[in-house]
Amino acid sequence: MSSEEDRAVVKETVQRISPVDRSWIQSAEERQRRLTKPPGSLGRLEEVAGRLCAIQQTLLPRVSRRRIVVFAADHGVAAEGVSAYPAEVTGQMVGNFLAGGAAINALARVAGADLSVVDVGVASEVPGMSAPTAPGLRWVQSRVREGTRNIAREAAMLEAEMLEAMRLGIAEAEQAARDGVTLLGMGEMGIGNSTAASAITATLSGLAPEQVTGPGTGLDPGALRRKVQVVERALAVNGSLAEDPYEVLRKLGGLEIAALCGLSLGGAALRLGLVTDGFIATVAATLAARISPAVIEYLFAAHLSPEPGHRVLLDLVGQRPLLDLEMRLGEGTGAALAMTVIGAAAAAHCEMATFDSAGVSDRGD
Amino acid sequence: MSSEEDRAVVKETVQRISPVDRSWIQSAEERQRRLTKPPGSLGRLEEVAGRLCAIQQTLLPRVSRRRIVVFAADHGVAAEGVSAYPAEVTGQMVGNFLAGGAAINALARVAGADLSVVDVGVASEVPGMSAPTAPGLRWVQSRVREGTRNIAREAAMLEAEMLEAMRLGIAEAEQAARDGVTLLGMGEMGIGNSTAASAITATLSGLAPEQVTGPGTGLDPGALRRKVQVVERALAVNGSLAEDPYEVLRKLGGLEIAALCGLSLGGAALRLGLVTDGFIATVAATLAARISPAVIEYLFAAHLSPEPGHRVLLDLVGQRPLLDLEMRLGEGTGAALAMTVIGAAAAAHCEMATFDSAGVSDRGD
Repeated sequence: MSSEEDRAVVKETVQRISPVDRSWIQSAEERQRRLTKPPGSLGRLEEVAGRLCAIQQTLLPRVSRRRIVVFAADHGVAAEGVSAYPAEVTGQMVGNFLAGGAAINALARVAGADLSVVDVGVASEVPGMSAPTAPGLRWVQSRVREGTRNIAREAAMLEAEMLEAMRLGIAEAEQAARDGVTLLGMGEMGIGNSTAASAITATLSGLAPEQVTGPGTGLDPGALRRKVQVVERALAVNGSLAEDPYEVLRKLGGLEIAALCGLSLGGAALRLGLVTDGFIATVAATLAARISPAVIEYLFAAHLSPEPGHRVLLDLVGQRPLLDLEMRLGEGTGAALAMTVIGAAAAAHCEMATFDSAGVSDRGD
Repeated sequence: MSSEEDRAVVKETVQRISPVDRSWIQSAEERQRRLTKPPGSLGRLEEVAGRLCAIQQTLLPRVSRRRIVVFAADHGVAAEGVSAYPAEVTGQMVGNFLAGGAAINALARVAGADLSVVDVGVASEVPGMSAPTAPGLRWVQSRVREGTRNIAREAAMLEAEMLEAMRLGIAEAEQAARDGVTLLGMGEMGIGNSTAASAITATLSGLAPEQVTGPGTGLDPGALRRKVQVVERALAVNGSLAEDPYEVLRKLGGLEIAALCGLSLGGAALRLGLVTDGFIATVAATLAARISPAVIEYLFAAHLSPEPGHRVLLDLVGQRPLLDLEMRLGEGTGAALAMTVIGAAAAAHCEMATFDSAGVSDRGD
């Protein structure tokens, strides 16, 4: 597809996003009050159920078909030594996904989700890519470029590259909808991507790099100080970014972040529930929400990562995470766990008896 | 069984409880470090996996067979107007469990757990008790007494009643072990039982009743003030309870709380993982831990309820809850949700590839 076609797909997708009709939330609350339990006693599960009703425009929401989409790409900024792991690990871990040996393979199974892995910009070889052995896995290789440019020296992407990655994300949302998926988890793999995420978070929040930059996969304090300096350089080199989320994404982002941003836009346009994951996925969702604020109504914040920028972003989009298990792995692992909570919310909402039907006495007041 | 036989069963069960061998936790941590993820990046899932290894004495713990046991009983103190619901709701809700219409039916299904419902002291009729229709449900009617005595006027139970209820709980742990269950969730139903739980919590913690008494299923502020007064009367009437957990349980507890205490003791003796639920289940687990401190090593604190006494108890037993979803329903619903997290911890621990086996480069340091 040409760059102009990519641009048109993104634009049309954004135009198709509409806010949810909040009267569904009220109707869902009325149903909850008739179910055989004290009002409000399922806590946040009731809130989740109400939002699912509004997203799906039904009082009996279905989340039985679930998918985690993991976008993988490399980052030029990895050359600055910002990660505890060498850059080849991006491709090696994609190979691990394809062989079924990664955390997300195990946790997607537990969550009853299938897994799609999309290479939008890995820079090295992916072992075993011609014959994935993980059962039920969908594998797409669509490298836009072998990694981004180094954001500490120049803009990460050309506009055409960013639009192509976004369009690939939109295409995954469309594929999911065709496959009957109603709940879409946001996963990523990319050595160096917490540096890009920190630079974007500093820009979106106005906070200093040191407030939104953390150890990622496990830097020691000295390496963390250097990472903060790299983020500072990235912001200086890429100039004042003003308020344009596309420019923030293009200059500081990554191909997998652009694809996840596209997935969020496409998912919201198709009225799918979007389950964020950790810091990186939330950066992408936040950019999507800057592009189209109604995206927020389709988001479920899966969990809170210890990365300091994550809470900042969740506050920016006004979301409370469902889980806080100190996970900081990415890959969509937090999204997978949150899907079981969302599934439980839907099950209680749809399957419970009412006071009338069960012959149970309601409260006296 | 005679009271002397019940006493002997409880005593022998307590004697069979032994602390876990913590070297399993170290071995589990070594395995975690070889798995294809940054060290520690699965957060609390890694801690859960280590504890499962120690409980089951294996590096490949299995939690595929799960069960929630819901004990139901009435409370004489309900006559004081301490609940938003009439006392008949205990029996009606047991009928709802048997018909498959309650929250715990839906959430146990989601958690892949089967459900046992044990009437240890319901005071009213259980609709449909002769023919439960919920699929796969185990139903035991073993009423020790039709509800406890009113703790605001006298001791809740005779010692023989308490021991019988405890023995019924132990029997459920033994049945679960025979059925191959490795993870046991603690559920309860009993109108008035948060009043008993508050009285016990005040006694165990030394805090004032108003600090550990909450709205339960939903009292208004005036009714909550009266509930606090009832707890104060219960403590005054039942005298100084010193440090004997059996006496605290007998005088202030409930038949379902005694049974859950027995389930905890029996589960720990049989090396099963015990998943607490909300305030009431945690009271029972705390009493079990007072009887045998090693019980704590078999406990997983499922979630944090908004009931003010719940956090007090979790601090007493040194447990951090896995979830905080503002649930306050009981029935084992929080235990069910936590089981999916525990299952995910075991899945990641057992199923992931190692850096060596997957050909992934480990960190440079």
